Amino acid sequence: MVKIGIIGAGRIGQVHGKSILTGVPEAKIEAIADPYLTDQAREWAQGVGIQKISLDHKDIINDPEVDAVLICSSTDTHCPISLEAIAAGKHVFCEKPIDHNLANIQKVVDALQGTNIKYQVGFNRRFDHNFMAVRQAVADGKIGEQHVIRISSRDPAPPPVSYVKVSGGLFLDMMIHDFDMVRYLSGSEVEEVHAVGAVLVDPEIGKAGDVDTAIVTLKLKNGALAVIDNSRQAVYGYDQRAEVFGSKGCVQCGNDTSHTASLSTVDGVVSDKPLWFFLERYMSAYQLEIKRFVEAIVNDTPTDVGVVDGLAPVLIGLAAKKSLDLGRPVKLSEIG
Amino acid sequence: MVKIGIIGAGRIGQVHGKSILTGVPEAKIEAIADPYLTDQAREWAQGVGIQKISLDHKDIINDPEVDAVLICSSTDTHCPISLEAIAAGKHVFCEKPIDHNLANIQKVVDALQGTNIKYQVGFNRRFDHNFMAVRQAVADGKIGEQHVIRISSRDPAPPPVSYVKVSGGLFLDMMIHDFDMVRYLSGSEVEEVHAVGAVLVDPEIGKAGDVDTAIVTLKLKNGALAVIDNSRQAVYGYDQRAEVFGSKGCVQCGNDTSHTASLSTVDGVVSDKPLWFFLERYMSAYQLEIKRFVEAIVNDTPTDVGVVDGLAPVLIGLAAKKSLDLGRPVKLSEIG
Amino acid sequence: MVKIGIIGAGRIGQVHGKSILTGVPEAKIEAIADPYLTDQAREWAQGVGIQKISLDHKDIINDPEVDAVLICSSTDTHCPISLEAIAAGKHVFCEKPIDHNLANIQKVVDALQGTNIKYQVGFNRRFDHNFMAVRQAVADGKIGEQHVIRISSRDPAPPPVSYVKVSGGLFLDMMIHDFDMVRYLSGSEVEEVHAVGAVLVDPEIGKAGDVDTAIVTLKLKNGALAVIDNSRQAVYGYDQRAEVFGSKGCVQCGNDTSHTASLSTVDGVVSDKPLWFFLERYMSAYQLEIKRFVEAIVNDTPTDVGVVDGLAPVLIGLAAKKSLDLGRPVKLSEIG
Amino acid sequence: MVKIGIIGAGRIGQVHGKSILTGVPEAKIEAIADPYLTDQAREWAQGVGIQKISLDHKDIINDPEVDAVLICSSTDTHCPISLEAIAAGKHVFCEKPIDHNLANIQKVVDALQGTNIKYQVGFNRRFDHNFMAVRQAVADGKIGEQHVIRISSRDPAPPPVSYVKVSGGLFLDMMIHDFDMVRYLSGSEVEEVHAVGAVLVDPEIGKAGDVDTAIVTLKLKNGALAVIDNSRQAVYGYDQRAEVFGSKGCVQCGNDTSHTASLSTVDGVVSDKPLWFFLERYMSAYQLEIKRFVEAIVNDTPTDVGVVDGLAPVLIGLAAKKSLDLGRPVKLSEIG
Repeated sequence: MVKIGIIGAGRIGQVHGKSILTGVPEAKIEAIADPYLTDQAREWAQGVGIQKISLDHKDIINDPEVDAVLICSSTDTHCPISLEAIAAGKHVFCEKPIDHNLANIQKVVDALQGTNIKYQVGFNRRFDHNFMAVRQAVADGKIGEQHVIRISSRDPAPPPVSYVKVSGGLFLDMMIHDFDMVRYLSGSEVEEVHAVGAVLVDPEIGKAGDVDTAIVTLKLKNGALAVIDNSRQAVYGYDQRAEVFGSKGCVQCGNDTSHTASLSTVDGVVSDKPLWFFLERYMSAYQLEIKRFVEAIVNDTPTDVGVVDGLAPVLIGLAAKKSLDLGRPVKLSEIG
Repeated sequence: MVKIGIIGAGRIGQVHGKSILTGVPEAKIEAIADPYLTDQAREWAQGVGIQKISLDHKDIINDPEVDAVLICSSTDTHCPISLEAIAAGKHVFCEKPIDHNLANIQKVVDALQGTNIKYQVGFNRRFDHNFMAVRQAVADGKIGEQHVIRISSRDPAPPPVSYVKVSGGLFLDMMIHDFDMVRYLSGSEVEEVHAVGAVLVDPEIGKAGDVDTAIVTLKLKNGALAVIDNSRQAVYGYDQRAEVFGSKGCVQCGNDTSHTASLSTVDGVVSDKPLWFFLERYMSAYQLEIKRFVEAIVNDTPTDVGVVDGLAPVLIGLAAKKSLDLGRPVKLSEIG
Repeated sequence: MVKIGIIGAGRIGQVHGKSILTGVPEAKIEAIADPYLTDQAREWAQGVGIQKISLDHKDIINDPEVDAVLICSSTDTHCPISLEAIAAGKHVFCEKPIDHNLANIQKVVDALQGTNIKYQVGFNRRFDHNFMAVRQAVADGKIGEQHVIRISSRDPAPPPVSYVKVSGGLFLDMMIHDFDMVRYLSGSEVEEVHAVGAVLVDPEIGKAGDVDTAIVTLKLKNGALAVIDNSRQAVYGYDQRAEVFGSKGCVQCGNDTSHTASLSTVDGVVSDKPLWFFLERYMSAYQLEIKRFVEAIVNDTPTDVGVVDGLAPVLIGLAAKKSLDLGRPVKLSEIG
Repeated sequence: MVKIGIIGAGRIGQVHGKSILTGVPEAKIEAIADPYLTDQAREWAQGVGIQKISLDHKDIINDPEVDAVLICSSTDTHCPISLEAIAAGKHVFCEKPIDHNLANIQKVVDALQGTNIKYQVGFNRRFDHNFMAVRQAVADGKIGEQHVIRISSRDPAPPPVSYVKVSGGLFLDMMIHDFDMVRYLSGSEVEEVHAVGAVLVDPEIGKAGDVDTAIVTLKLKNGALAVIDNSRQAVYGYDQRAEVFGSKGCVQCGNDTSHTASLSTVDGVVSDKPLWFFLERYMSAYQLEIKRFVEAIVNDTPTDVGVVDGLAPVLIGLAAKKSLDLGRPVKLSEIG
């Protein structure tokens, strides 16, 4: 039985908690900590029987009963708490991104050296049924050599501008998932990126120094070309599609919907929109990633998304940002 | 907090138990009973914290702490236990069918007269996201007056012949869900049925006196015509589709799949098969039906699938059976 | 070069004429005749270079230059003109149905005995790309043994009641295509039918003694069961679907649309309706059937839809009519 | 009646000829000329009744009976023959591209100044049912302000390397259609492009100095971003898709197939591949473009694809080529 401490009792912390309670019988939530613990969170934690509830995450770090921590606190705390947890010999599941700063992430990489600590980064989409099916086809050689990867990733609605300002920007906050997806689907590293961006959704996002619409092309080490488009607002729902095209064929996935019904009338044939909310869209992925983290601990196998997988997309994101700033392609070797 | 006793700790009993544990915070499993309690069931019950575990369902019937019972035992016990529970003033959720015998079901109908006991029958498909979307379109008048209803319902693989022998036959065991679906989608009663059947899947089913393939046409009170086809074996998965066609349009639903990925190669474009297993296909429906049952108790509203909804499809099934035997259409007024 | 005389210069006669002109280089339109020749028809015929234009179909029958005739005149003339053409040694393409009277069709069957005259009946759907693909899968054994055949066939709008009165009724006028389709897709004969019908579209159709909505179940000689639903009015377009389900799988076809574009907005995902007009929907089928007729002449091979294929669906239609009248299943052996 | 002279009697010349014969009653093929006239072409021309067959295109230019010419000869002749035809006062339909050299195209632009000559360039995809439906949705404001345009355009198989060498390269030979499509779908001009390319299909294409796989991002004057991916080889067929995403929604189109049938078995659900051959895929578009050209003459309206529409994609193609060579974005203002 893996005993888990959850650091950060907000939405995503509770999501992971529920995943453990309902789908990971090999694990138990030993403790939860949050300096800004809300009444809702406290009630939830008590309701599901978590015994140790604290305002100080160090109570978890120092708890000898805790085997593993889930770091679900704000991004700026991911690195320091990771380091504390590693120092305390805890396994770590850390929400993405580890940090926006490569040197900080490198400290975590270094701290893990020589240990047998399991470290997993929260790139949940790797556990999504659709993307897994695409990856499986690629890995099975069904499409042969990879030629072109296409990803469209569009949020249903933009976050508040206050969030945008501290988010690290579109490339580190939103497209980082897609950079990870390119690496996951291709099994290859990225060599060079070129970004174009625009402010088309909300001028306030532009005033905050960010873009809300972007297309990034990527050259991969395996020779393939990739392209990602992002938008902060797809009014029809959370639009999440990927395609890998190669010498033997093409595999692609579409969106999930809430039902399969379609209505034919004089006005056309109407079917359901993509699911709107990311928690609904990726619920099973959130469940599976925690289950797989616990399995890595139990079976002493590498995690599916290691610290290097946490570092690489940040590197790509920084390169994309630089490309947008300079108006030219940027090699990853120019960063860091 | 509605305190629930589960009678029958087999597969479906545990499914409902999990639904309560993970999705119905207004309810609590107070007790579970099963005369043939397996080790697996006992461990499961203990693992999820059920305090009262018994071999005798009367322990639940007589437990003053229990507000409602879920009858998940074998079909032949549904009626007697329903009657006991009603006599004890418990609300009842009873798996389908209540009984194969109309007179027995009538006893339950009679017993409920004058009480405020909530009685719900386990026609889970009424809570399926796809069928609900079809019903919603019909109820909203999107297709106008109903003209034709089409249902295809095919199991992935036939049950053991030993089961077939005691199942009540295709019409009462399998197509009963589709008779219920016709009533649900149309909001109308059935007046007349005509059945054709054949033994095409397994000759042993024929030797057991049953058919494994059947088409039934139905005339509805609202004037619409309906048709259901059933097969005990669709090798590509659990095939569950419905369509309602009317004066203003047509609404139809397809199958659920495990992912949306499709692969294009020289051999064609391949996408995923329908989900294979009924528990996977209808998991969210099983969860919702229990949630709705508890809500009916909490809010003192009628259940979504009352005892009459449990009786009507049996009546239709008996008429279909008679039609197949006699080789002619049979009016429901000829039965019972 | 096969020299063709077209008898009947109306819509369908001109459709076949255009097919020859644009797609059948081995054939030439030698003559056209129509007792009610319109100005439009005369202009069309002259415009496409048809030399012999007549008001008397006997001019074509007696023309030694004519190798084959297309009978596109009214249904009541199909039999007598067929007999005249056969007597004159002409190959015959006859629009469906040959006749509503079995004895009359039998005369054509008899007249063809011992001759090498090619006779093809205009069941155009056998040449439709979608139904051909379904048939091909069945013929290739892709679905194994046939278990259930489902056909939905719905017109976009009802014909004038004046037409309904002389049409022979839904079963002989409209569903006859679907009876043919059951025979074509299954490669099997029909043994018994049961029909239910209703007047749901237009009460005037009922007053004319016909139904506008019907479901017919059929038992086939090969053991499979089939079901057809027809409606005179599908407001969303010409709805033409078929499905064959068997021991190894299921093949089904959907409708054709005018484009593949879909629009996703807050209101849903909207795609195109089925094509509305039968000539648009089946244009390529009309072209192929004439091409195949000419090929049968040129290569001295049997036609794809022989006189027996013209007789059988009429027999089924008469049985369906009788079933509806009597309210019981009718065996084909009861007819004729 | 518009009298047309076809210059170039090869495949595409005959395609246009057939379009006129079967679908453009307002036009007549007066003459055809080809210096390399094949026996097949001569037979075809005689077979369809073209009276004037010549080896010298000047016979058509000088023929006072000819109102309009279709220039279907090799690319290097498009400009000089256009100039000759304009000088002779003929309307001109010219296959794409007009030329690879901007100065040459400018001569045609200049020659047309002050005349009322109709000049149409053969960007056939603008007349495709799918792309027209996408454009219509955009033009109707269904997607609001444009944000992202995505086009995938992949040939089923690469052309011979001998052709690649004289083709002008991927951007001017193949992607030029997609540059036109971006202008057509958006109704906007392009300001800047960035190209990445690779040799992944055939090393011989690389040796010929070209790429066979490329992704180009474009900034449009209207603020939108666009991306095109091209491959010389999609083994599953001619893959032609487009999508326009904006503030109110997203419209996209898929491929055409030869039928709608799908087969469900234990191996999955298999449906048809995209049509393989461009003439099959775009046959109705080829027909419509000629019809519209003749209508522009008859009605004295501007052509749908004028000489400027012939120039602009060449400019974009040259910019893309330069971008690939220099490894940086290129503004269109840098070209010409």
